[in-house]
Amino acid sequence: MTFELREGERLDDLQAKGLQIIQSDEVFSFSLDAVLLARYATVRRRDRVIDLGTGNGVMPLLLTARSDLPRGEIVGLEIQERLADMAERNVRGNALEDTIKIVHGDTREAVDLFGKESFDTVICNPPYRPAGVGDQSENEHVRIAKHEITCTLDQAISAAAGLCRYDGRVAFVHRPDRLADIIALMRHHRLEPKRLCLVHPRPHKQPNILLIEALKGGRPELRIDPPLIVHREDGSYTDAILDIYAGRGEWPR
Amino acid sequence: MTFELREGERLDDLQAKGLQIIQSDEVFSFSLDAVLLARYATVRRRDRVIDLGTGNGVMPLLLTARSDLPRGEIVGLEIQERLADMAERNVRGNALEDTIKIVHGDTREAVDLFGKESFDTVICNPPYRPAGVGDQSENEHVRIAKHEITCTLDQAISAAAGLCRYDGRVAFVHRPDRLADIIALMRHHRLEPKRLCLVHPRPHKQPNILLIEALKGGRPELRIDPPLIVHREDGSYTDAILDIYAGRGEWPR
Repeated sequence: MTFELREGERLDDLQAKGLQIIQSDEVFSFSLDAVLLARYATVRRRDRVIDLGTGNGVMPLLLTARSDLPRGEIVGLEIQERLADMAERNVRGNALEDTIKIVHGDTREAVDLFGKESFDTVICNPPYRPAGVGDQSENEHVRIAKHEITCTLDQAISAAAGLCRYDGRVAFVHRPDRLADIIALMRHHRLEPKRLCLVHPRPHKQPNILLIEALKGGRPELRIDPPLIVHREDGSYTDAILDIYAGRGEWPR
Repeated sequence: MTFELREGERLDDLQAKGLQIIQSDEVFSFSLDAVLLARYATVRRRDRVIDLGTGNGVMPLLLTARSDLPRGEIVGLEIQERLADMAERNVRGNALEDTIKIVHGDTREAVDLFGKESFDTVICNPPYRPAGVGDQSENEHVRIAKHEITCTLDQAISAAAGLCRYDGRVAFVHRPDRLADIIALMRHHRLEPKRLCLVHPRPHKQPNILLIEALKGGRPELRIDPPLIVHREDGSYTDAILDIYAGRGEWPR
């Protein structure tokens, strides 16, 4: 496999079925959040899947490594040209052109681009922070990926709801302090939250990541998972997290 | 202290500042849920507090045992005459007539009974199950306490919102599968969820109780607690639960 690297980029091992990924601290590098959501989301074999704001394409790549590998199509939509280009090189480098299609475009226009209810599953790791909040010294690429500059949470959930077919699934990763917003917005857009997982950095700590999956047109009844703990008290990874990284077994229950 | 016991009733120790409580398996006996909510709810010293559907008055009794004992008034509202009578005997038996007032009345009419925005804090351990679901062999007292027969979740949250002053607090205990309903209903009634605690029967198990507190007119930002675990793997109570039962220290963080 050959990867076209640009200045400041590096090639990392994704630790999943030999996949590699181009990253750059100045432009985009993935976090645990993306790894978790790519494992958490319910994806069926022939599903057509879209990842809204795919960055360097990390979630589409990880989806192909799951044992329940979708035979359908995975679309990665990215508004930043520089990142869409990186994602495209990641797809080519891993020889996944037949499965993953990267599209340079705006989540806010995604329903016009792809058509209403054209996907079975929508996944999204949106910017977490409101525009103008936090470290303003970050460069433009990082700011757009981390802050609600080109897409608010409402716009992301609205786009996901529009793209998802009836009875299809929408999965988001976000910060726990936004849970009430996420639930209220999902319901407003007829997405019924069905699964919730809170991720805690260590035992006895507040969660710092939430994973949530909604069913379009579903009936109310939320299943909350056992807490997912990332590190043991001694700082090492828990077995649950090692299994997720390795893509082993079912999502921890 | 003298307690007036009726047929089928027993007197239990509340394990809190010498309080005792009349219970009856056929009419009403409290559960862990009530103990947790009476400790979880934010109550300030001079607050006027109301407990909607107080049963035998367990939560008002437990509130008086907290080290941050309210000097204000605690009202327990109960629709079932048999239970309101039991609660009243519990107040008299514990010599708490100056602090706790039991009112026989309907939560759905509570705003008319007490006046709009007349309380600083509202607490509620409502019936968990929809009417007609579950064991129909239970007697009428138990059915009304456990099922949404005389009060739905929407009616309980609506009453709580009406009774609570602006910037006051509303705390509920319920089942985790209703979280999306609770958040959506609270927001609909201008109650902003600010704190959430999920209670798990054992480590690595799904939660079976949720505690949630909202601020009337608050701005969105939810704080989710570390998971609260009831039993260790060996079946014994965790230190966190023993502290809660004993009323020791702050709510576990």
